[in-house]
Amino acid sequence: MTAYHPLTEEEAILYAKGIPDLFQSDTKLVSREIGDGNLNLVFHITEPDSGKSIILKQALPYAKVVGESWPLTLDRARIESETLKIEAALCPHLVPHVHLFDSDLALTVMQDLSDHVIMRQGLIERNRYPLFAADIAHFLAHTLYYTSDLGMNQQQKKIQLGRFINPELCKITEDLIFDDPYHDSSNNNIDPRIRDTVEQLWQDSDLLLEVAVLREKFLTHAQALLHGDLHTGSIFIRPDSTKVIDPEFAYYGPMGFDIGAIIANLLLNFAAQEGWSPDETEREDYRGYLLETIKEIWTTFDREFRALWNEHSTDRVFHTPGYQDLYMQNLLQDTFGFAGAKMVRRVHGLAQVADINKIEEPAARERAQRIALAIGASLIRFNRQASSIDDLIDIAVKSAQ
Amino acid sequence: MTAYHPLTEEEAILYAKGIPDLFQSDTKLVSREIGDGNLNLVFHITEPDSGKSIILKQALPYAKVVGESWPLTLDRARIESETLKIEAALCPHLVPHVHLFDSDLALTVMQDLSDHVIMRQGLIERNRYPLFAADIAHFLAHTLYYTSDLGMNQQQKKIQLGRFINPELCKITEDLIFDDPYHDSSNNNIDPRIRDTVEQLWQDSDLLLEVAVLREKFLTHAQALLHGDLHTGSIFIRPDSTKVIDPEFAYYGPMGFDIGAIIANLLLNFAAQEGWSPDETEREDYRGYLLETIKEIWTTFDREFRALWNEHSTDRVFHTPGYQDLYMQNLLQDTFGFAGAKMVRRVHGLAQVADINKIEEPAARERAQRIALAIGASLIRFNRQASSIDDLIDIAVKSAQ
Repeated sequence: MTAYHPLTEEEAILYAKGIPDLFQSDTKLVSREIGDGNLNLVFHITEPDSGKSIILKQALPYAKVVGESWPLTLDRARIESETLKIEAALCPHLVPHVHLFDSDLALTVMQDLSDHVIMRQGLIERNRYPLFAADIAHFLAHTLYYTSDLGMNQQQKKIQLGRFINPELCKITEDLIFDDPYHDSSNNNIDPRIRDTVEQLWQDSDLLLEVAVLREKFLTHAQALLHGDLHTGSIFIRPDSTKVIDPEFAYYGPMGFDIGAIIANLLLNFAAQEGWSPDETEREDYRGYLLETIKEIWTTFDREFRALWNEHSTDRVFHTPGYQDLYMQNLLQDTFGFAGAKMVRRVHGLAQVADINKIEEPAARERAQRIALAIGASLIRFNRQASSIDDLIDIAVKSAQ
Repeated sequence: MTAYHPLTEEEAILYAKGIPDLFQSDTKLVSREIGDGNLNLVFHITEPDSGKSIILKQALPYAKVVGESWPLTLDRARIESETLKIEAALCPHLVPHVHLFDSDLALTVMQDLSDHVIMRQGLIERNRYPLFAADIAHFLAHTLYYTSDLGMNQQQKKIQLGRFINPELCKITEDLIFDDPYHDSSNNNIDPRIRDTVEQLWQDSDLLLEVAVLREKFLTHAQALLHGDLHTGSIFIRPDSTKVIDPEFAYYGPMGFDIGAIIANLLLNFAAQEGWSPDETEREDYRGYLLETIKEIWTTFDREFRALWNEHSTDRVFHTPGYQDLYMQNLLQDTFGFAGAKMVRRVHGLAQVADINKIEEPAARERAQRIALAIGASLIRFNRQASSIDDLIDIAVKSAQ
């Protein structure tokens, strides 16, 4: 079973039985393939006798998105498992435990999280997660601080950066987030109802300039090891637990890209409440919850990141008066810009979100799309002037009026 | 001779004889070791019969600066030879030809340039080099453009970046340029006559903040493959020829660091004319030549870089209206900042320059130091407001009054 090939369910069971100290010997295991088949095989392996279960995630040598298929490196499985290990060392309670990584098979054996739900679905159902803001802020502060020049030896950081060069996955982001949504690309998937507004974006020279600048940061600003795809579909959640999964897009990039990603996805749900909340009071109530969550994420992140910096940065220059404030302001501005870019692409780009697309009523769906587009475009246009997370809350509230 | 060891002159001759198609068979070769022994052995090998000559440059596993010695990776020889090859592909007339690189011995066999002089010495002697500004601008435009996301495939750039991770040499820059000169470090070498001014710098909070920001760019902004040490000691010159040597500090960093380095070293000579010009007219005349050279370097670089961009960047987003102007403005500002940092460290840091230090008359030397420090500090303070190369010329002229 050593040479790479996509495993069958029988092979997945055999493989799981061979892992030391996991299941009983001579046990019966059951496998269910639960991946969507677009990027990975995901085998959910259970031992009915004990109730124990694990996940075998195997990278496929291609990607499929909306019918199209193209080759994709298996090295992303290594990048994912190595990132998970780094994240686990920094915040073990916030990522799945990795039992092993098999590089020949591009296969990661990890903790089963099926007692959690995918956060995107949880938000569509208007659930609340009281620990989430603090958890994700902790995750962001620790993973971003400790993989940056601030929090690790600067020479070791350079070497670590070399292990996370991820051209093919970065290319997907560069195209789908920073390019296609801003011109009439065949990769877009534009709802005819909002085509007028989308075409206006393509003529908005201020917006296009900011997108070019944001893309440049994504291409060149090697600040920290990012998750790289931190949307609400990459988070398994329960009211009492948060688990960040799927860091196969990990690479050294601008910190604001990760912070912006999670905020963007909360704002997409905020926009989508047009279609999910039965009445206006309930809708505004849930929207209030989402905005409070966003504010708590930034303020907690800001506080924890500064605390790590103040306590653990041994480097003299990083304690230059005024430097931390300037750094955090730039980070907030990047967060605005990347959050905006992450929103816009989800409205009319190739890969969209269930929050909006599963709204059945066309007029409500259109309103949600227009609100999401308005917030996203405003955040992009405004990003280099942002001075407080309240600016973002204001933009969201005004765009939904 | 395969395992690494520093070659003797006899071994260097034997090695040279073994290189195919270079010298006659059974020829007599003469070797002269002309390195300073601080970082490398440099064997100048001549064949008296033909007059042919080559250079064998071998990295030593340590660095010595002002008496101190510390271990230093031999991998820098690979980085140097690979950088020279990339530079040679882009502007063959501006770098020495590399015959071969021997990784086991950390040894590069390259063109002998002893018919040129080291530019620092040429400037001390107040020579003029009519081709220099155009040559170095061409070198900068081509090497920086074609190794950046603008001028090469963005996925290949990421992979190329991985080949130029250079932690140990970057560490030298990070310490000696961005840290030591800004506090009372034992690495500094402060002339007691200017200690008052140096101590004022250490209290200048605006300056210190800008230095921290510049260091962050050096640490994180992976814009292009830099030479990394582009001072006038890294340039062999004749009135009709310019050759850039010694790119062992090469890594992916901010473009302005290279442009700033060469401008800084011209400005250090500008300041040093206090000690080298016999009368004021001659001094101001030569200073005028230096400032014209600087202006021509930037304007030619700017024009050539934009032309490459307009003609060869196939990427749609890079042609977003307004983006190129913003990019070039940021590049100019970085150039100011890094030029300033490169000047300050040469006045009272560990490694100083002959332009200033070889001035025999103490009062003239002191004036030169003070002018260099004034220009450097002003460029650092002003960098994020720069809008034209004329701002830099003004700062230099005012600081020398």
